[in-house]
Amino acid sequence: IDEYTKVMVKDFSDQLCSLVKIPSVSQVNNPQPLREVLEVMQSILQKVGFSCQIVATKGFPVLVGSLIVNESKPWVLVYNHLDVQPAAEPEWKSDPFVPLVRDGRIIGRGSTDDKGPALTVVHAINFLKDNQLSLPNIQVVYETEEEIGSPNFGSFLDGVVKIGLLRKPLGIIISDSIFEGDVPAVDYKLRGVGQAFVALEVADKEVHSGLAGGVAVNPLEVLMRALISCKNADGSISVPEWYDSIKPLSLQEKELTEKVARHFDRDRFQKETGVRELLVASPEKMLERIWHLPTLEFHGFENVQYLPGSIKTAIPRAATAKVTFRMVPGQDPGDLLKKLEQHLKKTHAKIVVRGHGQAANLIDIAHPFIRAVIPACLDGFGKEPFFVGSGGSIGAVTQFQRVWKDVPVLLLSLSLLSDGYHAPNEEFQLLQFQKGCKTWASFLQKV
Amino acid sequence: IDEYTKVMVKDFSDQLCSLVKIPSVSQVNNPQPLREVLEVMQSILQKVGFSCQIVATKGFPVLVGSLIVNESKPWVLVYNHLDVQPAAEPEWKSDPFVPLVRDGRIIGRGSTDDKGPALTVVHAINFLKDNQLSLPNIQVVYETEEEIGSPNFGSFLDGVVKIGLLRKPLGIIISDSIFEGDVPAVDYKLRGVGQAFVALEVADKEVHSGLAGGVAVNPLEVLMRALISCKNADGSISVPEWYDSIKPLSLQEKELTEKVARHFDRDRFQKETGVRELLVASPEKMLERIWHLPTLEFHGFENVQYLPGSIKTAIPRAATAKVTFRMVPGQDPGDLLKKLEQHLKKTHAKIVVRGHGQAANLIDIAHPFIRAVIPACLDGFGKEPFFVGSGGSIGAVTQFQRVWKDVPVLLLSLSLLSDGYHAPNEEFQLLQFQKGCKTWASFLQKV
Repeated sequence: IDEYTKVMVKDFSDQLCSLVKIPSVSQVNNPQPLREVLEVMQSILQKVGFSCQIVATKGFPVLVGSLIVNESKPWVLVYNHLDVQPAAEPEWKSDPFVPLVRDGRIIGRGSTDDKGPALTVVHAINFLKDNQLSLPNIQVVYETEEEIGSPNFGSFLDGVVKIGLLRKPLGIIISDSIFEGDVPAVDYKLRGVGQAFVALEVADKEVHSGLAGGVAVNPLEVLMRALISCKNADGSISVPEWYDSIKPLSLQEKELTEKVARHFDRDRFQKETGVRELLVASPEKMLERIWHLPTLEFHGFENVQYLPGSIKTAIPRAATAKVTFRMVPGQDPGDLLKKLEQHLKKTHAKIVVRGHGQAANLIDIAHPFIRAVIPACLDGFGKEPFFVGSGGSIGAVTQFQRVWKDVPVLLLSLSLLSDGYHAPNEEFQLLQFQKGCKTWASFLQKV
Repeated sequence: IDEYTKVMVKDFSDQLCSLVKIPSVSQVNNPQPLREVLEVMQSILQKVGFSCQIVATKGFPVLVGSLIVNESKPWVLVYNHLDVQPAAEPEWKSDPFVPLVRDGRIIGRGSTDDKGPALTVVHAINFLKDNQLSLPNIQVVYETEEEIGSPNFGSFLDGVVKIGLLRKPLGIIISDSIFEGDVPAVDYKLRGVGQAFVALEVADKEVHSGLAGGVAVNPLEVLMRALISCKNADGSISVPEWYDSIKPLSLQEKELTEKVARHFDRDRFQKETGVRELLVASPEKMLERIWHLPTLEFHGFENVQYLPGSIKTAIPRAATAKVTFRMVPGQDPGDLLKKLEQHLKKTHAKIVVRGHGQAANLIDIAHPFIRAVIPACLDGFGKEPFFVGSGGSIGAVTQFQRVWKDVPVLLLSLSLLSDGYHAPNEEFQLLQFQKGCKTWASFLQKV
């Protein structure tokens, strides 16, 4: 396998560039690049021996590929997403959709989230198949709505399971998460994520601030006041009953958290994420905040001024805040949206909240399918993985757990903290391809 | 004169369209359309008999035109601005820079602020000259930085006065204000205006809200908290000492305010400005707020998300708020900016305020030059004007008062409240041209 990854790194790099150069941004309402990225992946899979099908959904399409080794063998399902975050940040040093190969990295939007890791798994399968080594039957599912919260993945899954296109697997594997420092991580807990547009309209048109400034209600100011009343200065949430339904931590979870906290390097976390100011100081408190507690974040506003360097002296007629929230097990997105709106309406009765979300996930780490990743990581990375919580969210996991309650979902990280998930100058390291490929080959050979 | 305006309304309309179709937005850093609008106005003036010169400044240029009737006669200075507000609002029903003539109105950005009124005065002069009626020597000054607060008008003025290009006038006339309901208004008091960019940077790059949400400081949230601490829910300002240096109202000012309050139609104000919600209820309180009290308004943010309909789950690395404030006599912009920054730093020491402003103006309404407008308004509009305060600001007035302390500035409104100053679908009514032309001709004939 070391030989294989050394020989194939050029192929991998070319293939990844061909995927990264397609601007498959799901937040833009343009299905063309999303279909195109699936078609490129389809032709890569077909060369490995997969039979493929691009399935239409109520939203953007999903690519399903099947590789039958032997009907008597078990099935494993591989999930990844090929849509990416927008890349309009001014901090990009190169065109985010013109991939650069430099210093053993591929730089470009989607390189590490999630095109690079997706392609790494395909090469692990290719290696096993080419060398007639043992491997299970495999189905791959690549969706293109992950970055918008997978709104149609549930109905897609119901549909393809019903018609028998997707087989119930022994287990599901996903590479869409981040190393814990320099140690591979298996996520046993994912926060849920929700989004809310918080809107207030108070006038028919914007009005000159000389003409009416002092008497006209400013909707941006009212929204700011309402939103700030939802948070405390320490970052905790002050919406009544927000924490009430959270499932308490088990003893095992507390132990896992403490174990990782001892290893957790705060300076490195700050250096690699670029976060200069922290709301809490100790590693234990940080992990508690990221793994086990909910968030409520403000990201910006619509319908108000945003052009750099200029200010128009007009009071906006309306304003809409962009809000997201992360949930932990026990919390329900619909319930939280209701609580949020109720609380905001105390500041102004006309504030309206429109949003949706997916609840958090817990994975049973005692399951043999999950435990099999430990020797695989020893093979590929030379280290046992940490079992970690994750502050991030993968909508599809919720749907898999709904449809196949007893099927374990193995989330193994291939990305590094420094890769820049959702950030400018995103990159994927070719060394992670080589070690990741070895790890997944070892895992798939054994299941 | 009635005959003249009837005949000339087509010419006026064509000329105004030729001015409106030039997108002379001073907030965009493009000098080309600003020079172009001055050139179009220059050719209009030359036909009237003015000798013209476009004067370069440290910023955008200024057009100076002179019409010498008789060297022994007094000089009157006419000031207007030909730059306009941006027009990116989605509520525009037609292209803001493709002027429409419909139902006796010219619709387009700048039609009423300030191209239509500027052109109206030119026609009053043209009428007097064509008919060999008495008129003073006239100089016109058209600047192109009014909508950005006239940052270079002071140094322009110092320069052209020094070289003798601009003569010290008997008085200055300006048509850049709005009727009081259906009565012409003379502004004796203008609020000053300042702008501030309030910035906070806390990270090297934006960070995924799953990865660091709960531990990373969100600069947008901190700014919102800091800014909201500057205002009370009733719209008053809670920055310490903000009101301390305000000059108290004279008895005459109180009487003028009460007189207009008796005439003030709140329903009409709300209907024509589109303001559905008011911070105070009575006309007296409304006029007090608009004429005699300062404001602090929030208009939007830079460096945070604004794309409609989407939310990226990333915490911004920095945020910059767009803030403006209106000042009343006694308040100093530099002093207020310092107080604002001091107060904001209590929430976060790294908040930085960058801004500038021009103080408020008071005009002596006992001056004969100002009082001469009363019979002129009776001639043109059939009504005596109200002497009013104004919530708006004209930077050049401050500079005129600095350079020529004893020269009165007459601000007579030609625009209607319903014209939509700084708003989408801005318009100017041709009837206002006709009556305004008659008023200014009457005024200029007598001085």
